[in-house]
Amino acid sequence: MTAAFDDWMKTVQAASETDMAALLPAADLVPAKLHEAMRYALLGGGKRVRPLLVYAAGALFGADADTLRRAAAAVEMIHAYSLVHDDMPCMDDDALRRGKPTVHIAYDEATALLVGDALQSQAFLVLAEADLNMVPAARLAAMLRLLAHASGSAGMCGGQAIDLDSVGLSLTLAQLEQMHQLKTGALLRASVLLGATAGKDLDAAETAALHAYARAIGLAFQVVDDVLDATADSATLGKTAGKDAADNKPTYVSILGLEASRALAEQLRLEAHAALAPFGEKALRLRELADLIVQRKA
Amino acid sequence: MTAAFDDWMKTVQAASETDMAALLPAADLVPAKLHEAMRYALLGGGKRVRPLLVYAAGALFGADADTLRRAAAAVEMIHAYSLVHDDMPCMDDDALRRGKPTVHIAYDEATALLVGDALQSQAFLVLAEADLNMVPAARLAAMLRLLAHASGSAGMCGGQAIDLDSVGLSLTLAQLEQMHQLKTGALLRASVLLGATAGKDLDAAETAALHAYARAIGLAFQVVDDVLDATADSATLGKTAGKDAADNKPTYVSILGLEASRALAEQLRLEAHAALAPFGEKALRLRELADLIVQRKA
Repeated sequence: MTAAFDDWMKTVQAASETDMAALLPAADLVPAKLHEAMRYALLGGGKRVRPLLVYAAGALFGADADTLRRAAAAVEMIHAYSLVHDDMPCMDDDALRRGKPTVHIAYDEATALLVGDALQSQAFLVLAEADLNMVPAARLAAMLRLLAHASGSAGMCGGQAIDLDSVGLSLTLAQLEQMHQLKTGALLRASVLLGATAGKDLDAAETAALHAYARAIGLAFQVVDDVLDATADSATLGKTAGKDAADNKPTYVSILGLEASRALAEQLRLEAHAALAPFGEKALRLRELADLIVQRKA
Repeated sequence: MTAAFDDWMKTVQAASETDMAALLPAADLVPAKLHEAMRYALLGGGKRVRPLLVYAAGALFGADADTLRRAAAAVEMIHAYSLVHDDMPCMDDDALRRGKPTVHIAYDEATALLVGDALQSQAFLVLAEADLNMVPAARLAAMLRLLAHASGSAGMCGGQAIDLDSVGLSLTLAQLEQMHQLKTGALLRASVLLGATAGKDLDAAETAALHAYARAIGLAFQVVDDVLDATADSATLGKTAGKDAADNKPTYVSILGLEASRALAEQLRLEAHAALAPFGEKALRLRELADLIVQRKA
């Protein structure tokens, strides 16, 4: 990581925080408890990997800043809602997230359910409210399709359903990859495509290259997550470590072992770089994000 | 109700069922359990009031049929997801819906959570996939904003949050109205506005008239729900009767009494008719739907 990348990342993270705070209803607006809990779930933490990907991909074709800002907030709202629901007792039953009590612990289960539901609606709202003077309406419709497709049963929700059904089973590497390509990969891919599409109607070659990049970083993200879950402590991760093993969930580490998992992550990092070759220097931040995803410690 | 209205209603209900079945992922597509449960939650029952409103309002300005079909399916998917989540143990904890076991009973809680989440995404997807040769992209963006706004914390989810917080409290009539205008009114209003907007960019007078109509039928719908909950049996309703009283929830009947509630519903029916005056004969089905909402027995 260069100092310039580190500066860029901190700038995007801070801007995303400010933007998302502005794109959520105020905490004193009725119903105040719901709005306060939505802000609790979304603001004040998180690596903001998805907004970083939106902005990095936005640089490929000079996308409008306000459109990117909305796309970044929207995709992060989808991610945040999925964490709130995923942490609930009927799913992973987790009490700690980003170093804070999860929403159903800090509030209650009913509020957590509604927070997730309302954050999903808000995601589509903030994107649909993009300024049509800055992004053509047909392209905005394409962005909304991307977000909806990545969020639903063909994407993130579908991956969580497969994940649920796989507890206690011994998956093959291909089955594990399919599950993660939906559960986390779909939204990471949407982030990349949203940022790029905000700037240009993508042609087939551009779409294929970005799919290849997104596939590589999506898998790498999960492989590294599994490695960290097996090796780091809860304080570093900001969530309960060792939980996958305790829950008897199949992971890359449980299937491949630790060293082969690390080697796979490095191979995927190189694949991500290779996929970006057609974009030249404009893909600098996307390349650096692939490095970050593989080399992160939490 | 005339025979012609009855025929029209049955035709729309049957068409909506066919359309929604086609606009959901197939039940044998991976993840099959999730897709099967989504179909269980959405298909095979329900009065389809929201699709009926979409089609009735679509007649005002001759909206494109495929766009209406998508709007009707989208709004019903939002409604269906809200029922699935509302029935869960952490919310109303209900075991019966439309005469069938609720989703978390027929499947499990985690599946019910994901079914609701995925149905919400699917709603935005089917609307965003409208044919831009048949509806201008800018107007489609307006429709997506309408749907998102009505679904989230400023609409349906917000109403449910207020409802949760009101259990055991004695609300004023104004507070009860505000809660229902969000909880059920927002989506009924969106149905009317979606159907009308599919045909035309609405001017201020048209929007105001449709808001007045939607406000009246939205309140009437809830007043009649409360009357039926207090007077009909579970078999007729297809859901657990007398539940509001058992849950100590404020209702129109508990505040106004039965007869005054019935009189209020009739007054709201007349207000709905009055609001439609500017639209003349094209508002026939909207007028008849106001009658249906007030005079229904289940």
